[in-house]
Amino acid sequence: MTNKFIEISEVGPRDGLQNIKQIMPLEVKKAWVSAEASAGVPEIEVGSFVPPNILPQLADTAELVAHARNIPGLCVAALVPNLIGAENAIRSGVHKITIPLSASETHSLKNVNRTHAQMIDEIKNIVALIKTIPEVDRPKFEGGISTAFGCTLEGKIKTTKILELAIALMDAGCDEVGLSDTTGYATPSHVVKLVKAVKAEVGDNNLTSLHIHNTRGLGLANVVAALDHGITTFDASLGGIGGCPFAPGASGNIVTEDLAFMLDSMGYDTGIDLKTLMKVRKIISNALPDEPLYGFTPDAGLPKGYPNAYRD
Amino acid sequence: MTNKFIEISEVGPRDGLQNIKQIMPLEVKKAWVSAEASAGVPEIEVGSFVPPNILPQLADTAELVAHARNIPGLCVAALVPNLIGAENAIRSGVHKITIPLSASETHSLKNVNRTHAQMIDEIKNIVALIKTIPEVDRPKFEGGISTAFGCTLEGKIKTTKILELAIALMDAGCDEVGLSDTTGYATPSHVVKLVKAVKAEVGDNNLTSLHIHNTRGLGLANVVAALDHGITTFDASLGGIGGCPFAPGASGNIVTEDLAFMLDSMGYDTGIDLKTLMKVRKIISNALPDEPLYGFTPDAGLPKGYPNAYRD
Repeated sequence: MTNKFIEISEVGPRDGLQNIKQIMPLEVKKAWVSAEASAGVPEIEVGSFVPPNILPQLADTAELVAHARNIPGLCVAALVPNLIGAENAIRSGVHKITIPLSASETHSLKNVNRTHAQMIDEIKNIVALIKTIPEVDRPKFEGGISTAFGCTLEGKIKTTKILELAIALMDAGCDEVGLSDTTGYATPSHVVKLVKAVKAEVGDNNLTSLHIHNTRGLGLANVVAALDHGITTFDASLGGIGGCPFAPGASGNIVTEDLAFMLDSMGYDTGIDLKTLMKVRKIISNALPDEPLYGFTPDAGLPKGYPNAYRD
Repeated sequence: MTNKFIEISEVGPRDGLQNIKQIMPLEVKKAWVSAEASAGVPEIEVGSFVPPNILPQLADTAELVAHARNIPGLCVAALVPNLIGAENAIRSGVHKITIPLSASETHSLKNVNRTHAQMIDEIKNIVALIKTIPEVDRPKFEGGISTAFGCTLEGKIKTTKILELAIALMDAGCDEVGLSDTTGYATPSHVVKLVKAVKAEVGDNNLTSLHIHNTRGLGLANVVAALDHGITTFDASLGGIGGCPFAPGASGNIVTEDLAFMLDSMGYDTGIDLKTLMKVRKIISNALPDEPLYGFTPDAGLPKGYPNAYRD
């Protein structure tokens, strides 16, 4: 019997580093990505294609993609805010592009200076661009609904608004939608409610991923709730660094090590070797000695007898 | 429609303080217990009846019980390791007595210097003592199976061993059993498996409480799993202080504030006013300025629009 595969998508090089003032040298980023891929992490979001004056920390994303593409079996993902970003992402050769669409229009205007309608237009232009690529080479294109569980500026977002945006993203030609708890507002019951509602609108296979923050400590609890409702990909950040600099009060992705430990212990197949993964922290702490790294499992260590005498 | 009531049992004055070298003055403990009861916490484990040379931090438990008993509506609980402790607990007038029985016999010998058989004999003696009290005045008596999810000394404990001990506790005359993740080894799937198995043996109403640690960050995830399987009482510690000094590597109860926030946000009734609860931290931090207090929700603050515009 094989265990169910749950994909962990590492977003530290993007969501983590964009929240840190210090710029990690490209060579360290390369070592990080290579080491995490070696530990078995199947997908890594290596950066964002945004103007370097906005996020100088991610200015070398194209070079990092070029490096990561050479790692066999790794899905190399990147975030783009607009058509220009998508052009650059495609040129770099990424396997997956995600564009965030903030459910909070206030946040969207602050973050990318665009209304919902303007964002959907931009997304249609990106889809048209992708369609000019031979089908075999096309990157996967995801519309990620950010602030889906609430916004620090607007508060709670109505479910009908999320459904409307999810449908608009699929109609615009996205391959799938994702839900992002940019602000750490999600609760297990809200996750279940929203995942069920969105899946009912866009189809079970068109919402399979969640991007959850651990702002109020509910990150793994939200994962557990989502696992029972057909979510199979979870974003996480090594050492829990990261957040959204444009959403005040938002902080902290789920810690990759804790998520991998939980899933593995629950009998899911993540493809990740935990002991190898733990060692990757050293690459980050050596390069960014002033940045705190989080993680309960790295602090406490693996349980006695792990994994064979421990797993359920 | 009324929301389902989930009971949070505060164990900080016992499990928290026993793990801290500094002794909290009795007057501060009284203020803490009173303040938390005012915030709506329905049950507080105020201490342990152990010899003062073993845990001098809890030497004033009887005085604290006397104070707490005067707070209307509060269930005053205490831990006892043996018959002498139970005699003292009964004399103090507690409403509830819990005796820990470690599923790991190695841990039991280290912790209380008794085998399983010796512990069950002791528990029978305590039951006999309780039965001498007029029924209306009898404290509730719980057998708490500690290291139920694994032991730092023995590793994983077989489910058959837990079932055997649960039955032995009920047969000895306990009113109910509880499961304790003393070492922070529990995972959501293990919680579901063990809760279902124990309930099947002792009856649904005789296992309603869990004592979960957050050692590997899975505390709230384990709560979410347990909520779906008939667990209605969860232990937690204000500011997350606490642990078991006799289980190396064990640390950190679930943070009361985070648990209360999660349950409240999910639409459960805890009876707790979160804003009032948050203020209780000040009593602890003023008295123990060198002890770190934990909690994601206290650090991040409550979400915009909380509670009315936020709750599911």
